[in-house]
Amino acid sequence: MKGYIGLDIGGTKILGAIFDESGKIIKKVKKKTKAQEGIEQVIKQIYKVTDELLEEKFDLLGIGAGSPGIILDESVVAFSPNIPFRDFDLGKKMKQRYKVPFVLGNDVNVGMFGEWKKANVKGAKNILGLFIGTGIGGAIIIDKKLYTGQGGAAELGHIVVEPGGAKCGCGSLGCLEAYSSKTGIQNAIEDFLQDGEKSVLSQHIGENKAIFSSSDLKKAYDDKDAVAVKVMDQAVYYIGVATGSLINIFHPDLIIFGGGIIEAMGEPMLLAIKEEAEHHVMPTLFKDVRFDLSHLGDEAGIYGAYYLIKDNI
Amino acid sequence: MKGYIGLDIGGTKILGAIFDESGKIIKKVKKKTKAQEGIEQVIKQIYKVTDELLEEKFDLLGIGAGSPGIILDESVVAFSPNIPFRDFDLGKKMKQRYKVPFVLGNDVNVGMFGEWKKANVKGAKNILGLFIGTGIGGAIIIDKKLYTGQGGAAELGHIVVEPGGAKCGCGSLGCLEAYSSKTGIQNAIEDFLQDGEKSVLSQHIGENKAIFSSSDLKKAYDDKDAVAVKVMDQAVYYIGVATGSLINIFHPDLIIFGGGIIEAMGEPMLLAIKEEAEHHVMPTLFKDVRFDLSHLGDEAGIYGAYYLIKDNI
Repeated sequence: MKGYIGLDIGGTKILGAIFDESGKIIKKVKKKTKAQEGIEQVIKQIYKVTDELLEEKFDLLGIGAGSPGIILDESVVAFSPNIPFRDFDLGKKMKQRYKVPFVLGNDVNVGMFGEWKKANVKGAKNILGLFIGTGIGGAIIIDKKLYTGQGGAAELGHIVVEPGGAKCGCGSLGCLEAYSSKTGIQNAIEDFLQDGEKSVLSQHIGENKAIFSSSDLKKAYDDKDAVAVKVMDQAVYYIGVATGSLINIFHPDLIIFGGGIIEAMGEPMLLAIKEEAEHHVMPTLFKDVRFDLSHLGDEAGIYGAYYLIKDNI
Repeated sequence: MKGYIGLDIGGTKILGAIFDESGKIIKKVKKKTKAQEGIEQVIKQIYKVTDELLEEKFDLLGIGAGSPGIILDESVVAFSPNIPFRDFDLGKKMKQRYKVPFVLGNDVNVGMFGEWKKANVKGAKNILGLFIGTGIGGAIIIDKKLYTGQGGAAELGHIVVEPGGAKCGCGSLGCLEAYSSKTGIQNAIEDFLQDGEKSVLSQHIGENKAIFSSSDLKKAYDDKDAVAVKVMDQAVYYIGVATGSLINIFHPDLIIFGGGIIEAMGEPMLLAIKEEAEHHVMPTLFKDVRFDLSHLGDEAGIYGAYYLIKDNI
């Protein structure tokens, strides 16, 4: 059998899989990233996952991988927020060790690439992905290829939706991420509670913040908790604003929405985003654009890594 | 001699030129568009310009053209704000009549393509153009090719910079164009005057609005007219916000700024935009991006049309 390895190198875990040439998963391995133990340890963990996959007997054609951060030349991690990579040529290391082609991309980009390839959306060439989780990541597919600009493109969570607004982790004010990510939602809830409002989510706020899960949020929203409804309406509003701008910029075929918040809230959130976006789009452009949910969940990254290396060879 | 024809079909005039294979202009012809007289008349005017160019003896290899509006398949004008084209296949007409390849693009897209090709920016692959005139147009060049999405992409003037803000001609609220185009600036001046502020630009406001020229605005700004300074600072602020978002989205090699307002205000406005944009960009992305002014002025459209057809053959 001939096959590929797809690696999803995350801040907390590394997930790897062997794919056969038809795209079927043959074997999966998951290990901790151990990012706090330094770069040498992270590399060891990547090797461990790969070596364990290679215990399976098959003819390895190439390895694809996704990693958080800014990726240059499909090989070098210029900078990563969660892993201690700095101008680190992971591609060179991997090619030296495994003697096969290796391609690296940004994790969110790669995940959305996997979503799109796996969904096999007919006729769609230009696709955007918005990934609403702890932060907000994005992906841009132009003419069926991942677009990365000079390496750091598709930071769609840092579209300015409210100039001079809420402080964002990136240092700017009013980014989409500052309102509509889990972190932004958590901050907004905190503000409401400080203003004296009541919410079932208050148990997750305070000195020792126990970050609520996306399903806690979903439950509070479904129970019509006033604070949960207000912060989610605000989150949807700003995703709609950003999506409107994105359609005016890209006139894309398709926008895929994924990430923990979207997965928890589901179809109703997608419809609400679509409805809001329409208010911010040029009338002639909106009707052409499809909105869809992501489907692969945790496996988007390994699928994307597989398609990335397969397309590259 | 072998050559190409480049046509810039504008709302008020049609400019055409013969280019030799080295890109030198051999002959230029300009005629009124006569858009108010209906579509048949506009086509006649396009033919007239082309026919008059063809009086020159040369071997025509192809025709490129730019037109306002949403262009499909490099041939059909789906919709144009200034010319009565509706789902009109201009490409078919032109190919039938002149028996040569023909390529059509959006006028602002094509103009910015001309700017970029003519400037011959070494190494730049991904370039954005922002054209600040009566409205605000944009252009996106990805991997050295014009990007148009489903035909209507690069409406960069309709990035939402202030949700719920100033009313825009497109029907939305808070678009960049509503603040930073000449129309937006005119409206802002009007608001200040209604609030009782004094300005040398007041002569251009009122019942029979005599729209001020970009050089009137430049003079008032240089003379430190308080209203002119405030509205221009606001215009620059929002261009900076939008530019910041665009860098986070595209991480482009280069952004070219053009259009009447930019041409009149010149280098100081470019520097002010750059300074403002930096506040809205992820720190790691900003340093890589070049800012430049457009240089071709009125001839950008015909140059772009020429490069478009030349690249296409």
